[in-house]
Amino acid sequence: MSEKDTGRVEAFSDGVFAIALTLLILEIHVPHLAAGASNRELGAALLSLWPSYLAFLLSFGVVLTMWINHHEFMRCVQRVDSRFLFANGFLLLMITFVPFPTALLAEYLGEPAANAAVAFYCGTFVITNIAYNVVLYSVAHNRRLVLHEISDMALQKVRKSYQLAFFVYLLSFAVALFHAVAGLVICSSLWVLWASLGYRSEEA
Amino acid sequence: MSEKDTGRVEAFSDGVFAIALTLLILEIHVPHLAAGASNRELGAALLSLWPSYLAFLLSFGVVLTMWINHHEFMRCVQRVDSRFLFANGFLLLMITFVPFPTALLAEYLGEPAANAAVAFYCGTFVITNIAYNVVLYSVAHNRRLVLHEISDMALQKVRKSYQLAFFVYLLSFAVALFHAVAGLVICSSLWVLWASLGYRSEEA
Amino acid sequence: MSEKDTGRVEAFSDGVFAIALTLLILEIHVPHLAAGASNRELGAALLSLWPSYLAFLLSFGVVLTMWINHHEFMRCVQRVDSRFLFANGFLLLMITFVPFPTALLAEYLGEPAANAAVAFYCGTFVITNIAYNVVLYSVAHNRRLVLHEISDMALQKVRKSYQLAFFVYLLSFAVALFHAVAGLVICSSLWVLWASLGYRSEEA
Amino acid sequence: MSEKDTGRVEAFSDGVFAIALTLLILEIHVPHLAAGASNRELGAALLSLWPSYLAFLLSFGVVLTMWINHHEFMRCVQRVDSRFLFANGFLLLMITFVPFPTALLAEYLGEPAANAAVAFYCGTFVITNIAYNVVLYSVAHNRRLVLHEISDMALQKVRKSYQLAFFVYLLSFAVALFHAVAGLVICSSLWVLWASLGYRSEEA
Repeated sequence: MSEKDTGRVEAFSDGVFAIALTLLILEIHVPHLAAGASNRELGAALLSLWPSYLAFLLSFGVVLTMWINHHEFMRCVQRVDSRFLFANGFLLLMITFVPFPTALLAEYLGEPAANAAVAFYCGTFVITNIAYNVVLYSVAHNRRLVLHEISDMALQKVRKSYQLAFFVYLLSFAVALFHAVAGLVICSSLWVLWASLGYRSEEA
Repeated sequence: MSEKDTGRVEAFSDGVFAIALTLLILEIHVPHLAAGASNRELGAALLSLWPSYLAFLLSFGVVLTMWINHHEFMRCVQRVDSRFLFANGFLLLMITFVPFPTALLAEYLGEPAANAAVAFYCGTFVITNIAYNVVLYSVAHNRRLVLHEISDMALQKVRKSYQLAFFVYLLSFAVALFHAVAGLVICSSLWVLWASLGYRSEEA
Repeated sequence: MSEKDTGRVEAFSDGVFAIALTLLILEIHVPHLAAGASNRELGAALLSLWPSYLAFLLSFGVVLTMWINHHEFMRCVQRVDSRFLFANGFLLLMITFVPFPTALLAEYLGEPAANAAVAFYCGTFVITNIAYNVVLYSVAHNRRLVLHEISDMALQKVRKSYQLAFFVYLLSFAVALFHAVAGLVICSSLWVLWASLGYRSEEA
Repeated sequence: MSEKDTGRVEAFSDGVFAIALTLLILEIHVPHLAAGASNRELGAALLSLWPSYLAFLLSFGVVLTMWINHHEFMRCVQRVDSRFLFANGFLLLMITFVPFPTALLAEYLGEPAANAAVAFYCGTFVITNIAYNVVLYSVAHNRRLVLHEISDMALQKVRKSYQLAFFVYLLSFAVALFHAVAGLVICSSLWVLWASLGYRSEEA
């Protein structure tokens, strides 16, 4: 099990990312109003769904950013083995899990229990980040599966950015226990940052 | 991140399109009749689901047409970068969102609140169209990512048709506020038009 | 839009087939028993779900057989154009629709309204068959998109088998109105037949 | 239908595996507490969902391991035919079925009816294992579809490990009738074992 076939793993991972992204919409529920409800009432009901829209948007952004990261990361990988497949499987487990904390966020944002919901949400990404670090280790430790042309410096840069993300997610978890919105802002800042960095780096 | 790998982005986008299409069916719910209901009663219940069938059909048609557009558009793209990936991500966000307004349409078509439901539905496509324009801009601005053999005239033609669609969707939104069915007809006219154009252009 | 790129269409179609297959399971619902229910009660509840298992099995078999057909059929196709894409889109619409009549079957099999449910189920495949014929026409009419090495006789054979299937599905629809189980057996006979033919032809 | 095109079958199978994995999350339901519930109450409700998390984790692990197996196995296959496609289809049927026993497990673990739920869960994998053996037979019988460079000894090793797994799953089924947790531990031991074997074999 040591030949070059990153293609099938990438396709499989992409499938899981794409499905997890798309399942997020199932957590936004159509409001069921009494028969004969007016346009005004439906409009108000649609507006009151804002926590669902926001949770959908945030989680979509996070998972998309993580997919882009995975996409870039796989370009450093020469071949896969079982160890990598199980590390990647742990990562996919966490990606698959995302719709649940998203639904939780949608239900409890703006409620007294928002702290628990946001902390659970941020905690999910702490563990997801650990999964990313495990995948990185399975590839980069002793350059086991790394393509020849990738420099040690480039690997070090990826490692640094994954470690930074770990502390940001951990911080967002801790902050969420005291201030739900602040925790959510910190947790989501990362992908907005990465998205804008992506834009910036192209300008250079 | 500036090499030729449109393949993985296309596969990922196709996955999201395919899943969004397929999830539409989850919004058609089996009628739950009292035990011992007759064939006639079940037949009547199935007929009364027409708004669900119609919403399913319309949204399937729209998303399929958008997929075909995406498919044709990607043939002009030489390579992808982060800026493109985030623009495309915004587009996929909107595609993923479609099952929600579709379910809304199925629930409120033929009800007094139909205007709000259809306006929300059409409004979704206004924003989806903006996403298409952002993707186009990310590729075609200064011909950043455009294949050499694509002429400026061909790009201009795509730009024009995306801009036309914007005004049609905006019109459908405005009309829906006053006449739900008329709004829906305008909104859906585009993909029927494109489908028949597709047919025609082959004849030539 | 007239180059060789059947690859992306096949991948997209495969995605829709795979998702439609997999969504079928969502229609089997876990029985919710009162707290403290015994093993015997849960066992009985699981057994009483037989219409759901049967509906799942039948629809899975049909969709899988249709996928294998699509798979074989695409090997005759040289290139795709918009006309083909929309014909194929109509087919995918019908494949996507299958989970709904499947859920209907699961709910009403063994009930007095079984005739209506089975007729609706069989009727879905009448229309699906029409979609297959439209796809075939879009490819084979005047050999528009047919690979050079495919003989007219081979095309004629496919055409015949699609037409035969049309009459079998229509018959199953008509029979279902008078005898639900007989209709279902006729409707399902086709894929069992094809599956066993597949086996046989390999022996030769 | 006897040329080399394992690519499309692999992609299709991967799609079904990926979707079945991802649908597992839909069986974890957000707790609906009374309005104004406190953080402590939500935290407690989230903790009490442990059977859902556990069922999700176990089934994800099993399906992922089965995907890795399928992935390795397909590397021995030279070409596909209808017989293989139907055997593989039976396997995909069982993979697709997994979310249902998983939801059952989540609902009844820790309840008096846990034996029936775990036995049903383990029984699913007995049949899944039979499907794996049918796929193996369809490929390896008389080396029908086996790549030239795969030795008889390697095939024999796969056959042995599939047969071993059959007895472990059967044992877990029988044990579950008397002791639910013990049955579940035996059933899950296989993929943990395979995962760690994967790790070990790389070290060598």
